[in-house]
Amino acid sequence: DYAKVDTDRQHRTGYPEVIYGEGKTPDQIIGIIQTMVSAEMNVLVTRVSPEKAAAVMAVFPLMVYHKNAQILTWQSVNVTRLTNTIAIVTAGTSDLRVAEEAALTAEAFGNSVSRVYDVGVAGIHRLFARLDVIRQAQVVIVIAGMEGALASVIGGLVDKPVIAVPTSVGYGANFGGLSALLTMLNSCASGITVVNIDNGFGAGYSASQINHLTENTK
Amino acid sequence: DYAKVDTDRQHRTGYPEVIYGEGKTPDQIIGIIQTMVSAEMNVLVTRVSPEKAAAVMAVFPLMVYHKNAQILTWQSVNVTRLTNTIAIVTAGTSDLRVAEEAALTAEAFGNSVSRVYDVGVAGIHRLFARLDVIRQAQVVIVIAGMEGALASVIGGLVDKPVIAVPTSVGYGANFGGLSALLTMLNSCASGITVVNIDNGFGAGYSASQINHLTENTK
Amino acid sequence: DYAKVDTDRQHRTGYPEVIYGEGKTPDQIIGIIQTMVSAEMNVLVTRVSPEKAAAVMAVFPLMVYHKNAQILTWQSVNVTRLTNTIAIVTAGTSDLRVAEEAALTAEAFGNSVSRVYDVGVAGIHRLFARLDVIRQAQVVIVIAGMEGALASVIGGLVDKPVIAVPTSVGYGANFGGLSALLTMLNSCASGITVVNIDNGFGAGYSASQINHLTENTK
Amino acid sequence: DYAKVDTDRQHRTGYPEVIYGEGKTPDQIIGIIQTMVSAEMNVLVTRVSPEKAAAVMAVFPLMVYHKNAQILTWQSVNVTRLTNTIAIVTAGTSDLRVAEEAALTAEAFGNSVSRVYDVGVAGIHRLFARLDVIRQAQVVIVIAGMEGALASVIGGLVDKPVIAVPTSVGYGANFGGLSALLTMLNSCASGITVVNIDNGFGAGYSASQINHLTENTK
Amino acid sequence: DYAKVDTDRQHRTGYPEVIYGEGKTPDQIIGIIQTMVSAEMNVLVTRVSPEKAAAVMAVFPLMVYHKNAQILTWQSVNVTRLTNTIAIVTAGTSDLRVAEEAALTAEAFGNSVSRVYDVGVAGIHRLFARLDVIRQAQVVIVIAGMEGALASVIGGLVDKPVIAVPTSVGYGANFGGLSALLTMLNSCASGITVVNIDNGFGAGYSASQINHLTENTK
Amino acid sequence: DYAKVDTDRQHRTGYPEVIYGEGKTPDQIIGIIQTMVSAEMNVLVTRVSPEKAAAVMAVFPLMVYHKNAQILTWQSVNVTRLTNTIAIVTAGTSDLRVAEEAALTAEAFGNSVSRVYDVGVAGIHRLFARLDVIRQAQVVIVIAGMEGALASVIGGLVDKPVIAVPTSVGYGANFGGLSALLTMLNSCASGITVVNIDNGFGAGYSASQINHLTENTK
Amino acid sequence: DYAKVDTDRQHRTGYPEVIYGEGKTPDQIIGIIQTMVSAEMNVLVTRVSPEKAAAVMAVFPLMVYHKNAQILTWQSVNVTRLTNTIAIVTAGTSDLRVAEEAALTAEAFGNSVSRVYDVGVAGIHRLFARLDVIRQAQVVIVIAGMEGALASVIGGLVDKPVIAVPTSVGYGANFGGLSALLTMLNSCASGITVVNIDNGFGAGYSASQINHLTENTK
Amino acid sequence: DYAKVDTDRQHRTGYPEVIYGEGKTPDQIIGIIQTMVSAEMNVLVTRVSPEKAAAVMAVFPLMVYHKNAQILTWQSVNVTRLTNTIAIVTAGTSDLRVAEEAALTAEAFGNSVSRVYDVGVAGIHRLFARLDVIRQAQVVIVIAGMEGALASVIGGLVDKPVIAVPTSVGYGANFGGLSALLTMLNSCASGITVVNIDNGFGAGYSASQINHLTENTK
Ligand SMILES: Nc1ncnc2c1ncn2[C@@H]1O[C@H](COP(=O)(O)O)[C@@H](O)[C@H]1O
Ligand SMILES: Nc1ncnc2c1ncn2[C@@H]1O[C@H](COP(=O)(O)O)[C@@H](O)[C@H]1O
Ligand SMILES: Nc1ncnc2c1ncn2[C@@H]1O[C@H](COP(=O)(O)O)[C@@H](O)[C@H]1O
Ligand SMILES: Nc1ncnc2c1ncn2[C@@H]1O[C@H](COP(=O)(O)O)[C@@H](O)[C@H]1O
Ligand SMILES: [Mg+2]
Ligand SMILES: [Mg+2]
Ligand SMILES: [Mg+2]
Ligand SMILES: [Mg+2]
Ligand SMILES: [Mg+2]
Ligand SMILES: [Mg+2]
Ligand SMILES: [Mg+2]
Ligand SMILES: [Mg+2]
Repeated sequence: DYAKVDTDRQHRTGYPEVIYGEGKTPDQIIGIIQTMVSAEMNVLVTRVSPEKAAAVMAVFPLMVYHKNAQILTWQSVNVTRLTNTIAIVTAGTSDLRVAEEAALTAEAFGNSVSRVYDVGVAGIHRLFARLDVIRQAQVVIVIAGMEGALASVIGGLVDKPVIAVPTSVGYGANFGGLSALLTMLNSCASGITVVNIDNGFGAGYSASQINHLTENTK
Repeated sequence: DYAKVDTDRQHRTGYPEVIYGEGKTPDQIIGIIQTMVSAEMNVLVTRVSPEKAAAVMAVFPLMVYHKNAQILTWQSVNVTRLTNTIAIVTAGTSDLRVAEEAALTAEAFGNSVSRVYDVGVAGIHRLFARLDVIRQAQVVIVIAGMEGALASVIGGLVDKPVIAVPTSVGYGANFGGLSALLTMLNSCASGITVVNIDNGFGAGYSASQINHLTENTK
Repeated sequence: DYAKVDTDRQHRTGYPEVIYGEGKTPDQIIGIIQTMVSAEMNVLVTRVSPEKAAAVMAVFPLMVYHKNAQILTWQSVNVTRLTNTIAIVTAGTSDLRVAEEAALTAEAFGNSVSRVYDVGVAGIHRLFARLDVIRQAQVVIVIAGMEGALASVIGGLVDKPVIAVPTSVGYGANFGGLSALLTMLNSCASGITVVNIDNGFGAGYSASQINHLTENTK
Repeated sequence: DYAKVDTDRQHRTGYPEVIYGEGKTPDQIIGIIQTMVSAEMNVLVTRVSPEKAAAVMAVFPLMVYHKNAQILTWQSVNVTRLTNTIAIVTAGTSDLRVAEEAALTAEAFGNSVSRVYDVGVAGIHRLFARLDVIRQAQVVIVIAGMEGALASVIGGLVDKPVIAVPTSVGYGANFGGLSALLTMLNSCASGITVVNIDNGFGAGYSASQINHLTENTK
Repeated sequence: DYAKVDTDRQHRTGYPEVIYGEGKTPDQIIGIIQTMVSAEMNVLVTRVSPEKAAAVMAVFPLMVYHKNAQILTWQSVNVTRLTNTIAIVTAGTSDLRVAEEAALTAEAFGNSVSRVYDVGVAGIHRLFARLDVIRQAQVVIVIAGMEGALASVIGGLVDKPVIAVPTSVGYGANFGGLSALLTMLNSCASGITVVNIDNGFGAGYSASQINHLTENTK
Repeated sequence: DYAKVDTDRQHRTGYPEVIYGEGKTPDQIIGIIQTMVSAEMNVLVTRVSPEKAAAVMAVFPLMVYHKNAQILTWQSVNVTRLTNTIAIVTAGTSDLRVAEEAALTAEAFGNSVSRVYDVGVAGIHRLFARLDVIRQAQVVIVIAGMEGALASVIGGLVDKPVIAVPTSVGYGANFGGLSALLTMLNSCASGITVVNIDNGFGAGYSASQINHLTENTK
Repeated sequence: DYAKVDTDRQHRTGYPEVIYGEGKTPDQIIGIIQTMVSAEMNVLVTRVSPEKAAAVMAVFPLMVYHKNAQILTWQSVNVTRLTNTIAIVTAGTSDLRVAEEAALTAEAFGNSVSRVYDVGVAGIHRLFARLDVIRQAQVVIVIAGMEGALASVIGGLVDKPVIAVPTSVGYGANFGGLSALLTMLNSCASGITVVNIDNGFGAGYSASQINHLTENTK
Repeated sequence: DYAKVDTDRQHRTGYPEVIYGEGKTPDQIIGIIQTMVSAEMNVLVTRVSPEKAAAVMAVFPLMVYHKNAQILTWQSVNVTRLTNTIAIVTAGTSDLRVAEEAALTAEAFGNSVSRVYDVGVAGIHRLFARLDVIRQAQVVIVIAGMEGALASVIGGLVDKPVIAVPTSVGYGANFGGLSALLTMLNSCASGITVVNIDNGFGAGYSASQINHLTENTK
């Protein structure tokens, strides 16, 4: 009775509940998965360390652990796949975990994802070289740490909704991601909305909602 | 030469440049409007005090000043109107200016808007009484000050993208809107993205981008 | 002489001193317990890690260690039990330690506790399903991390005092619990007072004081 | 339609809605009062400047403006008066407005109030001289700015619930009341809960809820 | 004796003392100017409001007031003019005061300045259109408010030292310029150093020092 | 009954109560003065604007208003004068009000004061030129805004207690005096203690306590 | 050449340099000690972990390690002992390390210390029971974490200089000691100066300077 | 495809890309080095722990690991050496890592460096003893933690550009380097620009750009 799984959520919001793995014991995670599996729901657990993942997979050996994203998945029910894509763009190599968390979340909900990584503004020609791919997407997720300037630059170059994810990459006056967060909230480019620091899941989820609207297929 | 109007923006991002009125003199605003009018663009100026508006309208008497929203508009070019709607929901009466800034921005770009005002969680039955209207929209903008809890509650009740706007309404430990901003960024409900404190314009703009995707009519 | 146990506190405030375990060595804790035991007082030690608990219980084998709450207790003197109850409500599974710290504190002082866990606003129907239990209590403790919106929602639904406990559950812009703290301090619902981040003890203590007033039995 | 008065609140929470005057125009306040008066509710408006009060009283000449508290009241329905009292204690002279806001709120809901003002810890004998009055109350509201130490001292001396109100009185590193707020949240005395900076209303409201529990007369 | 003019500074640091006008009375400013004039120094006063300027010019009618920059100057001694230039680039129109403060400071110390204004990243083609001018300079000053992304973009495009000036332009989560300040300090582009929020003077001064090094003419 | 003057303070702490003028009405100040005058105490009121001073002096025409310090005094009882001095050193001209508040406070309690103003580290030779005066004092008060470096430099040069007063002089990232406050708290020089931002009164008071210890004449 | 020992400091400030052990390797500490020993100076090293202490004592076996204070000392030169005392008062048991750091520093410089520990305001009678000891001292050091109210209470009860040391004891909204720091800076009691969080050394050093002034024996 | 090495950077900005080692796996670092080596670029990796360095050097045994600076280098292409020098000055011994990061970066780009370490303002004569060396440089890098006052003092004594690097050395209210950062941004001395906390690399890089301008040899 420590957890009341929200099995009605899919009906209410169009998506099943996603398990937030941090701060939960393996036993608690296993208990929640059991309830969801009985209710014939697909399972997605975010922020799972390799050790925790191993403990859960000892009970559910069919689950897949995505190490880069620190995500556990179990897809038992088929998901309709969309044609329209979501572009996920990162500024640096160190933003990888957050980017893959966003990508796997979006894919779990039936979206196709274009990955455009390590094109930060310190070498802006790298971004222009990939602009066509970015422009083909219906929604763009921009992920950046340090000063997070990439979100503004892309916001000024595309005509689709941009979801910006600040990351905690950096040191000193980045104050654990505050720097990139403030950058993105204050962007001089229009059409940018923001999620929490390192919240790849939230960006993938919102982008999926928007992408589904474009095909009316949810 | 203090301003380089971005006349190419409509082509690049699908929307013309919107003028940020704060911190500009009436003369600077007038100069920018002149350039836009010559380029046959619609004009939208945000954050214009009544005094500044009067000074600008002395030169452009056809402009309309929306006092609640503190916005100046001039629509010379026709805008295609969408069928799908955007819902704009506020927690309290004091969030009005920000809500109207969002509403007028969305309307200026061809969207229909459902206004659902003063339904904050202190009296949650007021929200449930209007839930059907909110659920008919393709995108929901939630505007709240103080603790901003309304965004999470709505996020848990709808299956459409929610754009949350924290406002600076409140006092003491709301620290000029920081309280509502953090609430919205840390929402336990999924599918919420956030814009800057009091940024009704940004929310209206992003919501419009999403709404256009649902009709492919941009 | 590193500690002056406040053996007079029960007389002065109606309750014995409770030992704050964090930052004390097992030896210091043992010394304080010895003084209290000699004075025939019940003992309650909060924020005790399993290791520290083991070291203390090696000396006092009759003490009970409550792992979920990280609390050590020794009840040698009988405590009158009240009829009226305190409801303890949490938003998520991860708020468990703080909730149990509040519950055990309240129970140690003679209160009955109704536990209503994992009913956060992301799935608000879970809360409504338990509202009757919550409304039967004389005082309600609401415990939530991330954005802490649950306190406002409950504050708008009950006519009894609500004590809100922000927790440090979350990441990024939750800034170690600051987000939930500000939410609760700025609540638009009336009748909510707040204690420190993760301070289950303080909430249990204050709720007990109020509950005792309802029976005039302290 | 800028305001949906919560006329059901009295039924739901035991108290009518209280109008938050700041950030509302006189016209908005007048409109809300009209709805409440039609529903035969008592009216309490907080944070009303003298100018705003004059504008409202031009329409409702029977209302009373309490200048020290910056509150407007209109009591048309009789309120049962309790025997048990609430003590309101301030550290300094400058905390007066907040203290009177708390006192008038509590009185409007039927409570008797003992005022003990200007007994801050810089001259602690002043506090001891009034301790008997404070100890006769069922609930104690402590109001202090600057460093807010008074709450801890009283918390250690009484066996009743203490509600602490930090005020913005002070300068420099008090950061608009943050200093007193943190003091009160981190109090080493047990039994203290806290409301927002300068929130006399919230303290009066919560204290009234508790006081009513002691007489079961709400 | 409220002021000890540092008449030796020119000898020690290569430049005369510059007067910081804010927080000084006109009388204090006049007194300091008198001392400098007697010592045959050029005079530069920053952050002077029009009213203060008028009061000072009533005594020294030969001084020049630069309204856009809020600067007062009096050049009695000739200054050698350099050939190499400093580029001053702004993101928006509202950064004008700070930009002109930098420009006039640099010019007062003998530098030539190229002004490139309103080329923020929301319309990045405006920047590329002026990149040649920027690249001809020996030092580049980048001035931007809101999210301040322009500094990073330019830092990635030029091979000369970049001095970044965050401005307080913006609202909400820009926290008086903190947002742009953190952006610039955390830039992923190399070769960027930063001065205080709105400190056009400091940027102009440092840029001048560097520019003089390129001609060994100080 | 809004104020309980602490007439016993002189006996308890060696000094009479000093009235904090900010946030008090002239009437409240007048009332407190009346009580003190009846008790034959000297009167010192800090942070009094010229307007407030005029209102008070209309009732007490013998009081003296010190405009630079924004202090009102009335010395009816003789104060023994010490031989040992307190040095008050400021970094800039704009620190004058705070410095004079410290100086007048110290003088009111019988101390002799050496004023050494405008010797900030930007021109450190100005400081060395006055070092002998500073070294003759028993206590040194250092007052500085902006980055407040002067306190550390003096702390490394004298063998007497240094009391540092950060001021709010500056702009941008000085955050209302936070910058100088942190500097002084983190000083790498030993023997420095700190008071609140702009708290000249507190520094003068503490310095006086120390100086009296050197003569055992309190 | 990583360290330039300030062997002249004793002459300049009356005290030898004290080594700050944190962030230095044992080798660096040993090197500095060697220089000081050659110059016939007493050695005091603060913030030394037991491991680091062991490594240093392997080279200098005559040094003494004070575990509670985390201090290493070596007294080769005799120090004149004062008659007048310094009182060191703590609020709780957890403030011990900081208190002993202050005490040993003061004793190393020839002062006598009265230790009054664990007398926090939650049980204020404990403080009154020791007030006579505190009042016999020439200077009082007050050390407290959490909300730090003890400093204000003592400041209102003694007529000697009080040096307040905030500690990082606590959790949640104590923000690593910020809470106690702000309390002490904003104290409504006069005569309190403040040092950095956990800076027992600084308090002991400043108190020693003051105590020496009372005997003119430095 | 996690990394797009910016091989064009040397052409665009005059310098090759420098690898930021923190948050990258050894495999990622090795991959990037391989690309750079193929492109015949010199390699510089910052913020590399000894363990990570060992893993990389297992693949590239010719690389050199500089332990004090936590930097890995591989210089295959010759770099022209300049005659003009950069002075690097530190306040304390604990600033060593940051200082060496700056020094090695500058040297890698062909500059000569004068190291002047441990001359903080607590013993200012140590600074004056080395002032001639500092004044011979074309650019001065000042590195300091705690309160960072050294930057202002040097800024007032030299006529060359000063680049200030705040470090995270200290504790308590230094808030991870915030204290020194604010000091340097608010310096009352002119000619100081600032980089991120602990960013020795950035300071070395910018200083190198400036020094190259003095010889026109880049
Ligand atoms: N990585 C994540 N970041 C933020 N929210 C998440 C994340 N993963 C899952 N969630 C949400 O967290 C909530 C579950 O919280 P809990 O009841 O504590 O498991 C659900 O509403 C999820 O949609
Ligand atoms: N001074 C006050 N401080 C905090 N909340 C208040 C105050 N006065 C009224 N309220 C609450 O504010 C809410 C009304 O908000 P609104 O709809 O904006 O009028 C109600 O829930 C009141 O209970
Ligand atoms: N400028 C000042 N800054 C800080 N404290 C002050 C100041 N002036 C007077 N005080 C102190 O403020 C207290 C009086 O507060 P109040 O009762 O509000 O007048 C006394 O303890 C004074 O010692
Ligand atoms: N220690 C450092 N601090 C700040 N930036 C650095 C550091 N080392 C390298 N960089 C910069 O970081 C960028 C590389 O980021 P990444 O793509 O994540 O490797 C390059 O632009 C470098 O110039
Ligand atoms: Mg990269
Ligand atoms: Mg309302
Ligand atoms: Mg859950
Ligand atoms: Mg008073
Ligand atoms: Mg523009
Ligand atoms: Mg000056
Ligand atoms: Mg204790
Ligand atoms: Mg040193």
